[in-house]
Amino acid sequence: MAEQRAADPHSGAYYQKERRKYSAEEEAKLERQHFWRIIDAFRSYRFHVHEQVKRAERQFRSLSQRHQRVLPGVLSNLARVRQCAEHNQEILDAVVHNSLHMFENVEYGEREDPRKARPSTTFDMDKLKSTIKQFVRDWSEAGQAERDSCYKPIIQEIQRLFPSDQYDVSKVSVLIPGAGLGRLAWEIARLGYSCQGNEWSFFMLFSSNFVLNRCEEENSLTLYPWIHQFSNNKKSSDQTRPIRFPDVNPQSLPLNTDFSMVAGDFVEVYSELECWNCVATCFFIDTANNVLEYVDTIWKILKPGGVWINLGPLLYHFENIANELSIELSYEDIRTAMLKYGFIFEVEKESMQTTYTENECSMLRYVYDCVFFVARKPTLHFNGQEEEDLQQNCPPAAKSSRREGSNRLT
Amino acid sequence: MAEQRAADPHSGAYYQKERRKYSAEEEAKLERQHFWRIIDAFRSYRFHVHEQVKRAERQFRSLSQRHQRVLPGVLSNLARVRQCAEHNQEILDAVVHNSLHMFENVEYGEREDPRKARPSTTFDMDKLKSTIKQFVRDWSEAGQAERDSCYKPIIQEIQRLFPSDQYDVSKVSVLIPGAGLGRLAWEIARLGYSCQGNEWSFFMLFSSNFVLNRCEEENSLTLYPWIHQFSNNKKSSDQTRPIRFPDVNPQSLPLNTDFSMVAGDFVEVYSELECWNCVATCFFIDTANNVLEYVDTIWKILKPGGVWINLGPLLYHFENIANELSIELSYEDIRTAMLKYGFIFEVEKESMQTTYTENECSMLRYVYDCVFFVARKPTLHFNGQEEEDLQQNCPPAAKSSRREGSNRLT
Repeated sequence: MAEQRAADPHSGAYYQKERRKYSAEEEAKLERQHFWRIIDAFRSYRFHVHEQVKRAERQFRSLSQRHQRVLPGVLSNLARVRQCAEHNQEILDAVVHNSLHMFENVEYGEREDPRKARPSTTFDMDKLKSTIKQFVRDWSEAGQAERDSCYKPIIQEIQRLFPSDQYDVSKVSVLIPGAGLGRLAWEIARLGYSCQGNEWSFFMLFSSNFVLNRCEEENSLTLYPWIHQFSNNKKSSDQTRPIRFPDVNPQSLPLNTDFSMVAGDFVEVYSELECWNCVATCFFIDTANNVLEYVDTIWKILKPGGVWINLGPLLYHFENIANELSIELSYEDIRTAMLKYGFIFEVEKESMQTTYTENECSMLRYVYDCVFFVARKPTLHFNGQEEEDLQQNCPPAAKSSRREGSNRLT
Repeated sequence: MAEQRAADPHSGAYYQKERRKYSAEEEAKLERQHFWRIIDAFRSYRFHVHEQVKRAERQFRSLSQRHQRVLPGVLSNLARVRQCAEHNQEILDAVVHNSLHMFENVEYGEREDPRKARPSTTFDMDKLKSTIKQFVRDWSEAGQAERDSCYKPIIQEIQRLFPSDQYDVSKVSVLIPGAGLGRLAWEIARLGYSCQGNEWSFFMLFSSNFVLNRCEEENSLTLYPWIHQFSNNKKSSDQTRPIRFPDVNPQSLPLNTDFSMVAGDFVEVYSELECWNCVATCFFIDTANNVLEYVDTIWKILKPGGVWINLGPLLYHFENIANELSIELSYEDIRTAMLKYGFIFEVEKESMQTTYTENECSMLRYVYDCVFFVARKPTLHFNGQEEEDLQQNCPPAAKSSRREGSNRLT
């Protein structure tokens, strides 16, 4: 049970809130507004999908009688989509219910005035739909193949680099920035490593809190993650097929496991020098405005001799987002920079085929041809000038107010 | 040479303009405005890409000196992107130059007032960038694998259904709606069939006119189709690699070949009953507001005993486009409807893996799991009531003013 786990000083808190504050009052207000905006998005999901279904029904009824007659299955399928949305809303309501007081050290107060709630944007709704698909990726049997392609290579490297017959793995600290719904971090913790996930998005944080702390019975809950996809369906029933979760009981970690999730911006939260044996990034580094800020942070927080494991594409989230810094580097650029920092590449594979929240029945599939590497921060670092630069010139990461890049294609 | 070919009464015109007019004056004006809007898009390409490059340079220069120093290749790559855009513009200028008087039966007059040209929209620029990638798909050696996956199955079916040892193939008429840059239609014509391509988009029409009528020497021209992609590059040079075209001389068809391209909306242009032996649609049917309008037209224009060959996904172009009819049917729905029309499925494969203007070096690839079918319109059609319906209730296709759906993902 999460309550027990939170009380266990060794397990750490599942959630801590560690955002560095700058202009405290305004910052807190913006954060509170953002929190409630995302809560509102969860709550207005049903309305949004119903509007979409109503539009589709209206358009169908505008067809000639002859056309309607040769399409006997369309309206019943739309009715089924509406039912599935109702069911999804029940899950989302449960997620929200458990999110309102989820942080140990921050409260977001009450909704100032519920009537002030603005209709959620398409942008937020798309984020929410992506979040629903994350349940498949991280916590369903249907996501197993995807996890095998994305998480397994990382886990295998950790086990190879820190084998349990040579290390007290409970002393090996692993950090997972961009932890999503937490499965990768959870799997690493299950193997006995000390593992912390970090996540910035409230969509993800609410959902991972729900799965990790409020779900126990295997495959007891149902979501319909594909109902929002009206294109590229072979069978109509592909759109409304269910997935069950969680495929494992997230509460089944041994009692002495050191597993935690921390909310906040990776660059801001992690400032303590040289305290991690391993940082593992999976589909994460392209979420940066400037990926070198992530490299800076990883370099700083890794212990000498520590390793950075990375797997993912370079689908920069802020590309084409107005008024946002977006530095789009090739892998070659990033690699060149990493060598200048002093990283030593120990493993490098330039073509690992993976998917990301794939709908396996869809007529369109996104295949990521990922880069995978293990790069070590040397124990002794002779690159004196650069090192000095890093220590002296590393400004406090510029405070970034809440902003969100584009969706990963799912 | 196209001039000679157009004079050959057997070859037909490469381009005819056959749009049915409704409120003639207004229709003509809208059409003219649309024509010049697309011309403007071609002409403003350089400006658009340069703005994008300037933004990237500005953002790079806003980085700390330390970050700039570890990224020695970024500015030189951006300079190279700018050069490639200059070169692309030269090709686009040549396309425009040959488009201004390309139609045999329609002239669009002079640009009313060049100062009235509005900045091209992102939407039009995205269309133009997709069009540049069509040169790879249809007329480069780099596109061979993609053509083999998309066009070869169609061509093989045509040859199986209408073998040259049993048919005078010059009397077998094949129509390719959504002909794009014309390669599929051209290949079928090269085999001796009487083949007509139909295309609605001016982007495509200008470009196919250029390739088919103004290019002769193999691989004599160069485009840089990937310079617009700043994400998912492994090497920086992947972004600026060239492709050459045309891989074959488009003018190399035998003199007596019956090959033509017709501009206009498929549903409006093709009203003559029962005159085609074969209609072949490749990545086309999902461009409809209502795919049944295409089915209506195909049913009507096929000779009794004629066949419809289709390959493609169902990525509906008008999904999520405001104020547009968009009927998003599953393949199952379409199949059910086709059976009610009277089509007989002779070949059906539900999983043909293809790509569409793929960048093979990209870390993100779109894989289409296509449906492929051959459906025959029976020689004798006993489905009396439905048939009567079709004849009586088929209204003239509603006149659709120029509007454009979303891009296929490329």
